[in-house]
Amino acid sequence: MAHICEAIMSTPDTPPGRVLKAPENFVSRELATEIESSGLDEQRRGFLRKSFLAASAIATGAAQAQAPSGGAAPSTPGAGDPLILNLPAHATSLGKPVAAAPYGMPSRFEASLQRREAPGLTRVSAASVAFTPLQSLFGIITPSGLHFERHHQGWHDIDPAQHRFMINGLVRNPKVYTMDDLMRMPSVSRMHFIECGANTAMEWGNVAVPTVQYTHGMLSCSEFTGVPLSVLLDDCGIDRKKAKFVLAEGSDGSGMTRTISIERALDDVIVAWGMNGEMLRPENGYPLRLVVPGVQGVSWVKWLRRIEVGDQPYATKDEAIHYIDAMPDGSYRQYTSVQECKSVITTPSGGQMMQGKGYYTITGLAWSGRGKVKRVDVSVDGGRNWRTARLEGPQLSKCLTRFNIDWVWDGAPAILQSRAIDETGYVQPKINALRAVRGTRSIYHNNAIQSWGVAASGEVSNVQAY
Amino acid sequence: MAHICEAIMSTPDTPPGRVLKAPENFVSRELATEIESSGLDEQRRGFLRKSFLAASAIATGAAQAQAPSGGAAPSTPGAGDPLILNLPAHATSLGKPVAAAPYGMPSRFEASLQRREAPGLTRVSAASVAFTPLQSLFGIITPSGLHFERHHQGWHDIDPAQHRFMINGLVRNPKVYTMDDLMRMPSVSRMHFIECGANTAMEWGNVAVPTVQYTHGMLSCSEFTGVPLSVLLDDCGIDRKKAKFVLAEGSDGSGMTRTISIERALDDVIVAWGMNGEMLRPENGYPLRLVVPGVQGVSWVKWLRRIEVGDQPYATKDEAIHYIDAMPDGSYRQYTSVQECKSVITTPSGGQMMQGKGYYTITGLAWSGRGKVKRVDVSVDGGRNWRTARLEGPQLSKCLTRFNIDWVWDGAPAILQSRAIDETGYVQPKINALRAVRGTRSIYHNNAIQSWGVAASGEVSNVQAY
Repeated sequence: MAHICEAIMSTPDTPPGRVLKAPENFVSRELATEIESSGLDEQRRGFLRKSFLAASAIATGAAQAQAPSGGAAPSTPGAGDPLILNLPAHATSLGKPVAAAPYGMPSRFEASLQRREAPGLTRVSAASVAFTPLQSLFGIITPSGLHFERHHQGWHDIDPAQHRFMINGLVRNPKVYTMDDLMRMPSVSRMHFIECGANTAMEWGNVAVPTVQYTHGMLSCSEFTGVPLSVLLDDCGIDRKKAKFVLAEGSDGSGMTRTISIERALDDVIVAWGMNGEMLRPENGYPLRLVVPGVQGVSWVKWLRRIEVGDQPYATKDEAIHYIDAMPDGSYRQYTSVQECKSVITTPSGGQMMQGKGYYTITGLAWSGRGKVKRVDVSVDGGRNWRTARLEGPQLSKCLTRFNIDWVWDGAPAILQSRAIDETGYVQPKINALRAVRGTRSIYHNNAIQSWGVAASGEVSNVQAY
Repeated sequence: MAHICEAIMSTPDTPPGRVLKAPENFVSRELATEIESSGLDEQRRGFLRKSFLAASAIATGAAQAQAPSGGAAPSTPGAGDPLILNLPAHATSLGKPVAAAPYGMPSRFEASLQRREAPGLTRVSAASVAFTPLQSLFGIITPSGLHFERHHQGWHDIDPAQHRFMINGLVRNPKVYTMDDLMRMPSVSRMHFIECGANTAMEWGNVAVPTVQYTHGMLSCSEFTGVPLSVLLDDCGIDRKKAKFVLAEGSDGSGMTRTISIERALDDVIVAWGMNGEMLRPENGYPLRLVVPGVQGVSWVKWLRRIEVGDQPYATKDEAIHYIDAMPDGSYRQYTSVQECKSVITTPSGGQMMQGKGYYTITGLAWSGRGKVKRVDVSVDGGRNWRTARLEGPQLSKCLTRFNIDWVWDGAPAILQSRAIDETGYVQPKINALRAVRGTRSIYHNNAIQSWGVAASGEVSNVQAY
């Protein structure tokens, strides 16, 4: 439900039925005059209370002004009339049975909430991207059905009974594991974000991708379950003196291979089968993928079939000609895989429409590949003034953090920005600070502050603000 | 994937292709002799390492012993042969495109993972229960598609644009809110479990319900997003002197109504629209339900339409003749709504089959309606000896906590139990301690220690152990 986009609705047009009446003083007329252009300098508590009341008064007013479409005029209250709540049709009928859907799906009214491919991004859809609709999501958990997709040669639904996972290279006892073998081993469950290194790529230039789904939607967050890679490497007798890197290999047709340092491999990397309580989805690597917390998505190798332990980086095609940073001097940075501290406002965001002035919650997501998010600041004037947002719990390392902040929109044009700071003290940069170092030729690793412009009309759009 | 139930599979029977070879010493024959009957008294580190190696050796041995079914005999290694990993068919073909499913679903190989109705539990399925398959889930987040269902008159897919929510009673300004009104207000996101008060009901007697899905599957856990009820009550000008209770009313045909104390209503109760990142599912109350952390599910009123503020308990049918505790003396306890500290082992659990002796991870869930889980102990000998399990993060208040503990099964009959302790110091009771106070006539609020028997055959079943 894209709540910002929807107009305030009239009262229900269900058939007249039993009604609930409330005292007559349900809306005091003077509330409608309480809307004020700006509350930024007021005492916060009184300011908020007034804002809520004002917003509610507007909503009630609009509902009253519109005649219901279904002929239920007698039960529509005018200002000062008793408060009436119609009994809807579903209150008087038998509903659907339990397990009507043994595996449930969202409401039919949420059908437009989809991950979406950016048309024309790649020559074939099997090597493309489908973006997560961040603008309509809440909290930090991404519903698995809306997890972003980035494939290099399409996805497969692999039979887990046939899947094998090998560890070889600088180990005393190379092994091939079945899924049954792995799932008997000591497991951990941890919540982490995954972000494609190319997320927010178009913002390097001045291409204003219209919505947060397309600017930041190669970002998802789940609870992953699996066996720590360190346990498996120990199980195979890793040569701790010689081992410096591991190579992770997927079993799809792209021959996806990525180098990971041995320090990271022995730290928090997981060979995972579980995502948000159930088995991984096929398009996310079922039955086995690597979870490399804080590192760009390409290293979270899907349909994982092999880990090789070596003594030097492998410089495979996926890390020699792809996922490298084009620098202004014509050189390329390689192995810059950590996703630096970043945040984005998800509502209001590009493509949404404000419902008129008054109180809003500005909400968004913050994350850091280096650890926990310590603070998020929000500006509504393009970065001149900042206020600190509320962070929702849990606040976990290398995981999304949801932030919220109160805002009374006065109806004037505004520029919304968020700025995250992580526990290392790193501050998310402005786009121009990033461009000064990195130029504009890059595709990857853009963690700049995002700006959303709010027009007087209420339209929200992607804008450049320096 | 019910990994405990599945036999160890043979090597893949995909067509011969490119193979990866590893050094010849991939499995040392002496490992097969390292299986030991019990490691409970050994040093933990050495014990675990040996156990893993042993388990892997068994697995490898089994794979080697079976000829593959598809004629790929030449690439099946015998003991001492080079380690070979066949390249599967999907490694040489183009896969499916992104957004093939705009809203993704689990693998076809997970089709048996369903919420299931207990046949014959109620006269019509619209007033029944569908249980969550806890035995196959990981971590703490319940996939929304597998969230348990308990309806009193079936479920409806309500148009959110038509839905209204009223607050009336002892408030200065009763109001009717649209979904748009609510979703503009200050929201919070919090992870909480929900458990039906009748969960584990059959265990009061000696009815051994076969699986954890049916014994404990009226239990789910999600990240919920919504506006605190306290904010809405303030918005309506609650009379803080007179208000002692609120009544929550659903909009389905059952006329579901529940009393909640004002202390709780002003504490952590949420008027929620979000569940695991997206809008609530229709069968879980879309577009609006009450979240009452720590309290039995019936109070989490679905399709929420009204909160009335009053000065005494309402004693509605749902709290006067249902959801009351039958005591041994013939009396009934009313308003016992908090779900006390409880835990259950989900794997191995009833209906599963052990894959032979060796190393296993015993895993399960613990929770408390009073706060955080402090500790979980596990016994494999019916409660004579206990070891403390590892708790996975995050460990949140009134939320599920996942626990894991290592176990080497020696092949002898065993009785598995888990015992949770919450931050108030409350210890989950044995079934007999609970029966001594509560008798056996009750339906509700059974939080006793659950016992799973492991037979020498490997069969796991629901047993009574005192």
